[in-house]
Amino acid sequence: MVSVGIIGATGYAGMELVRLLTCHPGVRLAALSSVSFEGKAISEVYPGLAKLCDMKLANEDEVIAASDVVFASLPHGLSEEIAEKCVDAGKVFVDLGADFRLYDEADYKNWYGLDYKKPELHKKAVYGLPELYRERIKTADIIGNPGCYPTSIALGLAPAIKNKVISLEGIVIDSKSGVTGAGRSPTQNTHFPEANESLSAYKAGCHRHTPEIEQTVSELASEKVSVTFVPHLLPINRGIESTIYCRLTEGIGLDEVHKHYVEFYHGERFVRVMPQGSYAEIRNVRCSNFCDISLHVDARTHTLIISSVIDNVVKGAAGQAIQNMNIRFGLDEAAGLLVPPAII
Amino acid sequence: MVSVGIIGATGYAGMELVRLLTCHPGVRLAALSSVSFEGKAISEVYPGLAKLCDMKLANEDEVIAASDVVFASLPHGLSEEIAEKCVDAGKVFVDLGADFRLYDEADYKNWYGLDYKKPELHKKAVYGLPELYRERIKTADIIGNPGCYPTSIALGLAPAIKNKVISLEGIVIDSKSGVTGAGRSPTQNTHFPEANESLSAYKAGCHRHTPEIEQTVSELASEKVSVTFVPHLLPINRGIESTIYCRLTEGIGLDEVHKHYVEFYHGERFVRVMPQGSYAEIRNVRCSNFCDISLHVDARTHTLIISSVIDNVVKGAAGQAIQNMNIRFGLDEAAGLLVPPAII
Amino acid sequence: MVSVGIIGATGYAGMELVRLLTCHPGVRLAALSSVSFEGKAISEVYPGLAKLCDMKLANEDEVIAASDVVFASLPHGLSEEIAEKCVDAGKVFVDLGADFRLYDEADYKNWYGLDYKKPELHKKAVYGLPELYRERIKTADIIGNPGCYPTSIALGLAPAIKNKVISLEGIVIDSKSGVTGAGRSPTQNTHFPEANESLSAYKAGCHRHTPEIEQTVSELASEKVSVTFVPHLLPINRGIESTIYCRLTEGIGLDEVHKHYVEFYHGERFVRVMPQGSYAEIRNVRCSNFCDISLHVDARTHTLIISSVIDNVVKGAAGQAIQNMNIRFGLDEAAGLLVPPAII
Amino acid sequence: MVSVGIIGATGYAGMELVRLLTCHPGVRLAALSSVSFEGKAISEVYPGLAKLCDMKLANEDEVIAASDVVFASLPHGLSEEIAEKCVDAGKVFVDLGADFRLYDEADYKNWYGLDYKKPELHKKAVYGLPELYRERIKTADIIGNPGCYPTSIALGLAPAIKNKVISLEGIVIDSKSGVTGAGRSPTQNTHFPEANESLSAYKAGCHRHTPEIEQTVSELASEKVSVTFVPHLLPINRGIESTIYCRLTEGIGLDEVHKHYVEFYHGERFVRVMPQGSYAEIRNVRCSNFCDISLHVDARTHTLIISSVIDNVVKGAAGQAIQNMNIRFGLDEAAGLLVPPAII
Repeated sequence: MVSVGIIGATGYAGMELVRLLTCHPGVRLAALSSVSFEGKAISEVYPGLAKLCDMKLANEDEVIAASDVVFASLPHGLSEEIAEKCVDAGKVFVDLGADFRLYDEADYKNWYGLDYKKPELHKKAVYGLPELYRERIKTADIIGNPGCYPTSIALGLAPAIKNKVISLEGIVIDSKSGVTGAGRSPTQNTHFPEANESLSAYKAGCHRHTPEIEQTVSELASEKVSVTFVPHLLPINRGIESTIYCRLTEGIGLDEVHKHYVEFYHGERFVRVMPQGSYAEIRNVRCSNFCDISLHVDARTHTLIISSVIDNVVKGAAGQAIQNMNIRFGLDEAAGLLVPPAII
Repeated sequence: MVSVGIIGATGYAGMELVRLLTCHPGVRLAALSSVSFEGKAISEVYPGLAKLCDMKLANEDEVIAASDVVFASLPHGLSEEIAEKCVDAGKVFVDLGADFRLYDEADYKNWYGLDYKKPELHKKAVYGLPELYRERIKTADIIGNPGCYPTSIALGLAPAIKNKVISLEGIVIDSKSGVTGAGRSPTQNTHFPEANESLSAYKAGCHRHTPEIEQTVSELASEKVSVTFVPHLLPINRGIESTIYCRLTEGIGLDEVHKHYVEFYHGERFVRVMPQGSYAEIRNVRCSNFCDISLHVDARTHTLIISSVIDNVVKGAAGQAIQNMNIRFGLDEAAGLLVPPAII
Repeated sequence: MVSVGIIGATGYAGMELVRLLTCHPGVRLAALSSVSFEGKAISEVYPGLAKLCDMKLANEDEVIAASDVVFASLPHGLSEEIAEKCVDAGKVFVDLGADFRLYDEADYKNWYGLDYKKPELHKKAVYGLPELYRERIKTADIIGNPGCYPTSIALGLAPAIKNKVISLEGIVIDSKSGVTGAGRSPTQNTHFPEANESLSAYKAGCHRHTPEIEQTVSELASEKVSVTFVPHLLPINRGIESTIYCRLTEGIGLDEVHKHYVEFYHGERFVRVMPQGSYAEIRNVRCSNFCDISLHVDARTHTLIISSVIDNVVKGAAGQAIQNMNIRFGLDEAAGLLVPPAII
Repeated sequence: MVSVGIIGATGYAGMELVRLLTCHPGVRLAALSSVSFEGKAISEVYPGLAKLCDMKLANEDEVIAASDVVFASLPHGLSEEIAEKCVDAGKVFVDLGADFRLYDEADYKNWYGLDYKKPELHKKAVYGLPELYRERIKTADIIGNPGCYPTSIALGLAPAIKNKVISLEGIVIDSKSGVTGAGRSPTQNTHFPEANESLSAYKAGCHRHTPEIEQTVSELASEKVSVTFVPHLLPINRGIESTIYCRLTEGIGLDEVHKHYVEFYHGERFVRVMPQGSYAEIRNVRCSNFCDISLHVDARTHTLIISSVIDNVVKGAAGQAIQNMNIRFGLDEAAGLLVPPAII
């Protein structure tokens, strides 16, 4: 049994970790912490967890001491210190925040406005997208769990880039995310009457997930790639749909592209390439760790259109973090994660 | 391993059975049937099930032959014939439809407009509400799985009636159900733009779940009780909230009532009596087999107000059916059902 | 042209006043105020008003000075002072808050925890429910605009009480309100992911609209009546549905009740008694000043079931306030208010 | 007073015409027709229209005879015959369907699979996008009212193309539409539990609005332009958001682009160019005839990002049709259309 701790357990990603881990056959929830609710039971904060997890919320040091693996879900800038404590204590650290996702400190500084305070730690960190970097994850001490948008986008683009069926110029990504992506703190934009029955773009061309997307795409392409990325706030609870537009390489058609995707994801437990003619739908992955990808070609404009959907809280956060833990600890990669989607 | 078959697997309750049973440690999905989609894979009908269940849809006889227990989720009037085949073949039959819920044929005739074609079968049938009738279920050949509204209402009322803290006169039940309760077939009322952002009562005082509610309440009270029941169509996917209004017996207060409820449900895995001052919320039971009950007293009018919430597709249908199967086959009653709610 | 001012113009009711008044043929928007946004244009706070109303937000004294009639939409406890200034300046005051709704100071103190600081003002105030108190409104200096729940309930109950077809004992009111009813300030309960796809009761038996409901019902009945009132938070933007349960007087049937309602509301512009067999639906009154009422009888339990729907922001707040102003200033009562519902 | 008739009055666009026209000061609703509901009152089909419009549904010939202008909202392929009758009778015909939108018969044949049966009629028809083609509309006998997606897109792109600040190559349009866009007939995709809490692309690169978009863009550019267009089904009732991605001409920045947009739409009543830094939001145009456009630049990739929002039922259908009628009949172009948005 792996002993698991969660720092920041009362945010949405933290709570979802609790939710999923209560059904995981190979782990024991050892300790939870929350700065805001220390001393309370997590089921007082989330009554939906009553009878399933009534653990008291402790502090971060207690969590580290009690755990083999520590998940943290915190605002950026707070994870390095925890990572260091974990490394020093010989614990594996999985960061659901942004602090260990970017290999290049310049990117972090540029997009998050902070320096790396402990640069040596970042050498021990790997970017934890299992379908692309499974080998690295197996031995990592620190795992930077990918952002929600980047997960849907990297999985959507990887086979096309690896197989060189698209141009690396002019990739356009139009993403739509449910409101849980904005976190648990109430704001005017996420106030029910203002988010409901609406939709708008935000942070067009300037969202912090951009460098993370480009890091993966560039590594896949073995050259520096820039993309245009625009997220939108979608009035649903969970789910991301990313529609990705790429210029097809001359002479390539849908059949060939589709074949590459099927092969690329052959054997993957959590990526489903849809049959030609079908569309990826958020409801088909809701509450699950799946990423569904559908492929479409606009032959008139030589454009490959990729629709990639995930549940932002599962494959885009807590589920993927558990998948990373499973890999790192030699458990079945799908342990605790084969919960079917809540299709309705 | 119990071999399980599902007749009517492509309706919402049937699909939810598949969804839940794929994670059940003690069963094997043996066969599925669907009149509308025979020959297709269920994952063609529900692409969200791809990689989890890609079984072909067979016919009803194949299902019965392959299974130890047969679940059927069909319109009323179709289950007797299947029940007979099951009984003859020595299979346990769990009916998610209405045909085996009412002990009194007159009620069935009165509210459903049909006679019992095989009255002898009904003597073998029990009403499968585990928290009230666990013992009977253990040996039943035919289990009439309760309706969604009646489940929320019977669990909400049982401790009050058993402990005689309320009057049996003038019980009023105002229920609200998500749209999955209306089934999978599109209609004008359930067309997104007409159901969304609205709410209305329907079948006020004449819904077919009324005799089922009264059957349980009367048995609990050991006398014939009539109730006023009005359901409402609520623009959400899943969930029922029933607010139940009862006159408190003279001299009884909230503390005493609350204590009765806590005691009555002591040891139950799926009923959670909320702390005083809290309210049952649909989101706390979404996608789970829980029933949350909160209790409130309007001292000015001597009224006990009970709010009871369930997920209509789980505790109100597929989850409860599995709970019944677990009891009947001597499995852990909660096996496959401890999936936490999708709180967000 | 009547000059109109709005104090508290950036709350939802204030904004809706602006929205409706921009189309009113008989008024001129003279001034708006907001403590939070003074100095900004209202279209900076609500970009949806751009090109329709770009007025600057002033302070409350400027509003009073510029207007013949002043609407205020403020938290309780703040209106008496404004009312006094208006009366002193010879302006009509319409209070959308709670301070002038209760005739009995004891009720106000009991439910709102405050004394009347200026009791003499309350003698000049009338409760502004036009369909019941049109004559009083015509000459009032201060109009207490009814609460949203009480509007739906009083209109739903009035004909039954006036015609003595129901018992005054044991009236149960189960109301459901869209989230705009909770106002514009973000809270945890109204955070999109927590309100969406859920429903729960709140303030069961202790909501502050209770004394207001009882005041009207008691006046209609000419005796003191108590009711049980439970509101619910409904995951839609606008709209209230109140289902009201009353014991029918012996010998009375649906036909007779329906006839009384049709007669009682004969000639009313904003109340629509639905044909027998139809149900009131929130979508049919959305964004409009209508109150739709449907009537149903459960003969088994001798219960009259009244379903009454309004848009909480229009008939339950801004629209009714304008209706009151129209009456008070001798305009066509429906001026500016015949905007059809947004049915889809 | 202009006498107005509506053929296909019970579809969503037809109903919305009724809704808006009941408040239009310069017209008289003369007759309505519906094949499905002939003989019924429209308020029986839409109870929300009771007391506002209780007209009987007649047949199409009665509508033409009674009207100066005839609106038709029908499936494609049915309008030519009606148009001919109108022209012969000297009535103006506004077609909300697709039959008179494309100037090139080859496009119509290619995308709709039908020939023009009466090609001479199409010479009398103009494409009725007022902001671009106001002059032509003033004298047209037949007005092809634009599709919903094309309206949002053409208005979003026009200033950029006219001012040559973008490349005509590689324009990508990602649109999201509320479910009313799919019409009133229930389908599996628009069944509440399947559309709600989800999102998916559909008809990627092959939606019938593509040639209409390209027709306008090509005319604006004075050369043949192809675009990539992918619509998505958005779980809200009303509204379209189109995010349009274009390569900026070398040396052009946001300030300059924004200035062009402000100038281009100077004096327009229904187009609002948002201040820099703001985002167009569907809620700000809901139930109104406005088109809000926000502009953003991703300098890293030299991409202009245009977000354009409309209400698909108003500016995308009924409202624009009325705007066209106003222009054609010399009424104030905004008559009956200055209904503010339902922001909440």
